[in-house]
This record gives sequence, C-alpha cells and structure tokens, in this order.
Amino acid sequence: MLEHWNLLTVRHQENGIRNIILNNPKKRNALSLSMLTSLRSDIMADIDSDDLRVIIISAEGPVFSSGHDLKELTSAQGRDYHYQVFQLCSEVMSLIQDIPVPVIAKVNGVATAAGCQLVASCDMAVATEKSTFATPGVNVGLFCSTPAVAIGRAVPRKVAMEMLFTGAPISARDALLHGLVSKVVPEERLEEETMAIARQVCQASRPVVALGKATFYRQMAQGRDAAYATTSRVMVDNLALRDGQEGIRAFLEKRKPVWTNSTEKAHE
Amino acid sequence: MLEHWNLLTVRHQENGIRNIILNNPKKRNALSLSMLTSLRSDIMADIDSDDLRVIIISAEGPVFSSGHDLKELTSAQGRDYHYQVFQLCSEVMSLIQDIPVPVIAKVNGVATAAGCQLVASCDMAVATEKSTFATPGVNVGLFCSTPAVAIGRAVPRKVAMEMLFTGAPISARDALLHGLVSKVVPEERLEEETMAIARQVCQASRPVVALGKATFYRQMAQGRDAAYATTSRVMVDNLALRDGQEGIRAFLEKRKPVWTNSTEKAHE
Amino acid sequence: MLEHWNLLTVRHQENGIRNIILNNPKKRNALSLSMLTSLRSDIMADIDSDDLRVIIISAEGPVFSSGHDLKELTSAQGRDYHYQVFQLCSEVMSLIQDIPVPVIAKVNGVATAAGCQLVASCDMAVATEKSTFATPGVNVGLFCSTPAVAIGRAVPRKVAMEMLFTGAPISARDALLHGLVSKVVPEERLEEETMAIARQVCQASRPVVALGKATFYRQMAQGRDAAYATTSRVMVDNLALRDGQEGIRAFLEKRKPVWTNSTEKAHE
Repeated sequence: MLEHWNLLTVRHQENGIRNIILNNPKKRNALSLSMLTSLRSDIMADIDSDDLRVIIISAEGPVFSSGHDLKELTSAQGRDYHYQVFQLCSEVMSLIQDIPVPVIAKVNGVATAAGCQLVASCDMAVATEKSTFATPGVNVGLFCSTPAVAIGRAVPRKVAMEMLFTGAPISARDALLHGLVSKVVPEERLEEETMAIARQVCQASRPVVALGKATFYRQMAQGRDAAYATTSRVMVDNLALRDGQEGIRAFLEKRKPVWTNSTEKAHE
Repeated sequence: MLEHWNLLTVRHQENGIRNIILNNPKKRNALSLSMLTSLRSDIMADIDSDDLRVIIISAEGPVFSSGHDLKELTSAQGRDYHYQVFQLCSEVMSLIQDIPVPVIAKVNGVATAAGCQLVASCDMAVATEKSTFATPGVNVGLFCSTPAVAIGRAVPRKVAMEMLFTGAPISARDALLHGLVSKVVPEERLEEETMAIARQVCQASRPVVALGKATFYRQMAQGRDAAYATTSRVMVDNLALRDGQEGIRAFLEKRKPVWTNSTEKAHE
Repeated sequence: MLEHWNLLTVRHQENGIRNIILNNPKKRNALSLSMLTSLRSDIMADIDSDDLRVIIISAEGPVFSSGHDLKELTSAQGRDYHYQVFQLCSEVMSLIQDIPVPVIAKVNGVATAAGCQLVASCDMAVATEKSTFATPGVNVGLFCSTPAVAIGRAVPRKVAMEMLFTGAPISARDALLHGLVSKVVPEERLEEETMAIARQVCQASRPVVALGKATFYRQMAQGRDAAYATTSRVMVDNLALRDGQEGIRAFLEKRKPVWTNSTEKAHE
C-alpha cells in the first residue's frame, strides 16, 4: 500500500472492501471543494467493478469532519462559487445512496454540519461511544439547511430541530437512540464491528445487493401501494437472476451458495 | 371450539376478538400461497360484522413466521407463479391496514423476511423478550425488498438498511426501541398484555375505530395541510355519528357510554 | 408585568423570549374556541418584530391541556360550529410551524388529545419526568384524527396507533424514546433547561433562524433530490445575508459575531 501524505482522501481496497479515509485532520477534515472532489473520485472509481462490494468512509484524527470549509463561503468567493460548493456536496451525499454498493460510515470523533450530513447520508453508520454529532451552523449565521435534508430523514423531527436550532451536540448513545447511527461500540471494537458488517455484505451476491439497495430508496419515496407494485416486480426480477436461483437451491440443498455475481438472468 | 389439526391457520372468535393462529410450525409457518390464502380468508371472514372488533395474529411453535416458502420460488415454478406469490403477499399485508378493525401481532419467537413484514404491517405488535426480527433474504440471494416496504415505514432508515444488508437479527428490545413493535413483555405476560389492548379496543365504538383507522393511513400519505383538511372534515363526521354524540354526552354526564355501533348519523 | 387573572392565556416577553401560558387550569386548559383564539393572538402579536426570537408555550396547573372542550362538540352546537373548532385548531397547530421563530413546548403534566397535538406541533418540547401524553378520544367516541396528523409525523407509526387505538397514556421517558418530546428533565430543572434552549436561539441571527425553520418544513415535504435543490439555493441565499457573512467572518477572526438581524443582502 502506498503512502499518501499529500492526499485529502486515502483509498485502499482489499477483498471487496474499499476504505476511504478523510485525511486532512489539520483542517478537521473540512469538506472543501477539493475534499469533496477527492471523495467523489474515490467513491466512483471502478464503481461497477465486481471486485468492489462495500465502501467504508472513516477519518484521520479526532474530528470525523467539521463540514464545509468556511473560507470557501466568504463573500469574496461570490455567489456562483458558493452554489458550486453546495451543488457538489449535495451530489456526493446523493451519490452515496445511488451507487450499487452499501456505504458504511465509521465514526470515531466529532461529526458536525456537512460532516454530520455525511454520516446521515451513508446507508449504515457505526460510531464509537465518544463520538458526537451536531449541526452548529446557526451559531455562525449559516443554518444547516442542506445537512437537514439527510438528518431530517434519519431522526425524528423534534430531535432534528433541536439539533438545528441550538447547534448543541448529541452523544453517540442519543444518535443510536434516534437512528442517526445504526451501531455504537467501544473505541477498541470499532474496527472489528465495522469489518463484521462489511464482510457480511461481501458474502452476498453483488447484483442482489445492488438491486436491493436501489429498490429500497426508490420504494421509500413512493406511497405504500406503488411501493408494493414496484417491489413485487423487483422480487420476481431478483428471482430471475442466476444468484437468486443459486441462493434458493443452495438453501434447499443445505449447502453454501456459490455466487456468479452475474447480472444475467438465470432463465428465459 | 373445533380442533383444526390440518389447517394452515386456525381462527376462533370470542367477545369481538378474533384470534388467527399461523398453524404450520413444522414448516416454520412459512407464508406459502396456501398459507397466505388461508390467512386472507381468516382476516376477511365477516369483516363487516359488528361482532368483530379486533384481530390478533399469533403463531404456533417457536417461529412466528420464516417468510416465503422458498420451494415456491424456484425457477421450476416460473415467473408468473412467482409474481402471484408476491402479489398475494402484498395484498394480504395491505389488507391488514385497510380493514376496518385494528390488527395486533402477538409475537413469541422468530419473525424473518415476510414474517417480519407481517409484524411490521400490523397496526400494533406485542412481542416477548425472546423474540427476534430479521430480513435475511440477502443471504439466500433474494433481497427482502417487499418486506422493506413495511419495515422501512416502521423503523428509522439506517436500522432498516442494516437489517436488510446484513440479514442479522435484532432483539425484541431493539425492535421496541426503533418502533417495529409497540410493546415488549415477558413471555408469561404475552397473553395478558395482548388481551388488555384487544379488550380496550372492544370497549370503543366500532364505527369510530373504523373511521379513525382508515383516516390515519389516509392522512399519513398526505402533506400536512391536506392532512388537516382531511381530518378536520373527518372529526366533524365523527361527531355526527350516533356514538360520537353518545360518547360526549356520557362524558359530560359522568357515566359509561352505551354504543349503538351504528354508522348512521345522529342528526341531520 | 400585569396580572391577568381573567385571561385564558397569559403572555409576557423579555429579552426576545415570549412566554405564553395556558391559564385556565380549572377547565384543564381545554382548547376551547376562545382559548385557541387567545393562543393564536398571543402567538401572532408582533410576530415580525425583531424583538421576538423564540416562543415558549407552557401551562398553569397539573394539566398542560386536555384538548378540545367537549361542551363545544355536542350536537346542540351543530355541524358548522364543530367545523369552525377543528379549522381554528388546525390553523393554530400549523401556525406554530409556519411562523419565523422557533416554538418550544414546556410541559409539566398531562397532555391529552389536542393538548398532545399541541406538544407534537411545537418545534421542540421539554417535558418533566412526571408528564404523560395520551390520545384518549376513542374512549369518548371521538377518535383523535386531527391530533394524529401531528403525532403520526413525530413518532413511529406503531407507537402512534397504539396511543390512538387504546387511549392509554405514555410516559415522558417513552415520549422521549419515540421522539414526541426532545428532552425530559426533573421538574426542578424544567425552567432552567427550557430557558437554556431559548437563550441559545436568542444568540442566533433572527433572519438566519427564520430562513432555516421555513426551509426545514419545506424540504421535509419534498423528495430527496428536490430537497437538495431547494436547500442548496437556500444556503447560497443564507450566505448572501449580512449575518451570513458576519458569522463566517467572526468565526475566521475568532471573535463573537455581531448580528444586524437584517434581512437585507450583504452584497450584490
């Protein structure tokens, strides 16, 4: 593995698991335009490769991410530049949900503003007990309205509003209680617990996971009846995949499935 | 009460409370086409009868339900048959929410895949401490996309996705924490606690409960302003029911109400 | 400060914090037409004044509010009158979310039916440990369908339905667990904890908070992509405010911001 002292994000991949590490601890891993560009690039690299099964986003240093780089948001930069920043940020947050592999946030520290949005945007999130989460934009005159898109869809409304109006941090325990993260672990178990989830994902068929992830977000935006119409068709399509049939045969034959990870159909 | 050794579901009804018991423990109460047909039939029998006030769905044996019968989902059965399975399953899950009486899941054991969907689809759910909930379809190459419709609307998004991507079970405590069930009790109190809720429902006016249930699901699919327009009209209609007026008179006169359970209006 | 022995609500304002107190404890602070009118008037008074930053709604006596005055809902009053009651109630509940300052419910006691709806409608809610919450309309033949609009959007669906179908109260702890309130405190700390949130809001720029609050409710009613389009534009607008730029400058210069609270733009 190479050393990347000068990179804003570091990426390495092994056994289907891609680790992307926010690597600018001196700047509290601020989501500057260049950091967002680097993050997008690391997410999208060979995204359709069968070798990639799951992405873990973590961070170097005590701050997971402090959100936008405020130096990029001064009036000196101008309105168009500001718009570019929020456009790119929204694009990266949406990409995380739109790519075909699950993304896990692995949080050990402070996640604020767009940094908290990043955690909320990942499909799953494992955090250490000492981690905290906040949307303190209101304190610097910039209400966390884009982070609120992701956070408002992850936690109950009153919890989101208290975070947004007061800027006060919530603990990892409260983040778990309210659904902002899916697991809280002692610091010494962060690596192990995150990898356990990642390895579990790797044991599944890639096209099955991809179909399931895309369908989840799609049906959640629909009413119940439309969601059932969508997913009933998807289940039939899933069964038509080679791995859909292999999985069921293996189960009935009480053996481990052997995935082809092919998106071709198993039969006519 | 008759014995029903050979029935996939057993139904009995007393004092307004209909118990439907999934009764194929040897097949882990799999939701086969025949089981779903039997369940639908038991739900819909005399559904508009005033004698019916609430339905409790429980299961025989240590598995509440393991979900679809995978033998029905092999390629040998064919695409049309598969589609029929998911259509019927979605229909039954939706019916539970669309019928005029509340449905309580009474869970003492393992509920997985479409079995977990069944719990999530009921209006209320009481579970014992030992019960567990999972969507392990991903492990057999069949992502739980239809269960995700019900589960994704019951629990926070990250909790749903971790269940769906890992297939790992969650405890009854976590199910309560995240809203998948509404009550968790020790095993020896399951009957009593479930019946307490059922009897409470029986003490209410049937048309008032029916109007309330239908309105709840309807307004939840609307925006806030449309929801208030809908429900403000419904409140006025509710007050025009004989039992709406009887309830208020009884309250003001400090006596127990005597319901007519009539859907006729009290006045012009 | 004046004494208001005969007023249904009492209002006083100091340092940007407006306290509105439901002041009819003998009638359990019922939300009669006159109480709702008084509450609306207290909320809307000088709502656009820069002197107003946050509203706290509390109540005199052991009952926060018992909901509608059932005497106003008898058949003697007639259908049009009933409709007027629910229209006004829905209007007040919606106003709380539509005004430009945050509203905090400060609850020390029982909140039922439309009283529980009032808590659910506030942006934030602090409750004492002894407080309880219920929607018992079903017991008097009047299903809490309008309260369900606010409660169903605050707590998980199964929790809402069990409250609505059984009428049974939930504890402050469970209300916190499920998101109906955002904080639970011992009774002796209610004043202090509520004021801490209110003072925090007062330290922010009024137009920034107003923009953030309006945007939150707006984007939550949209799909993810539309929500990001909306909020990305809002962030740029926020940065164009004088206080948006002042906040960032102050942060970069490591000093306290000095808000103008002006809605004018900072630059062309």
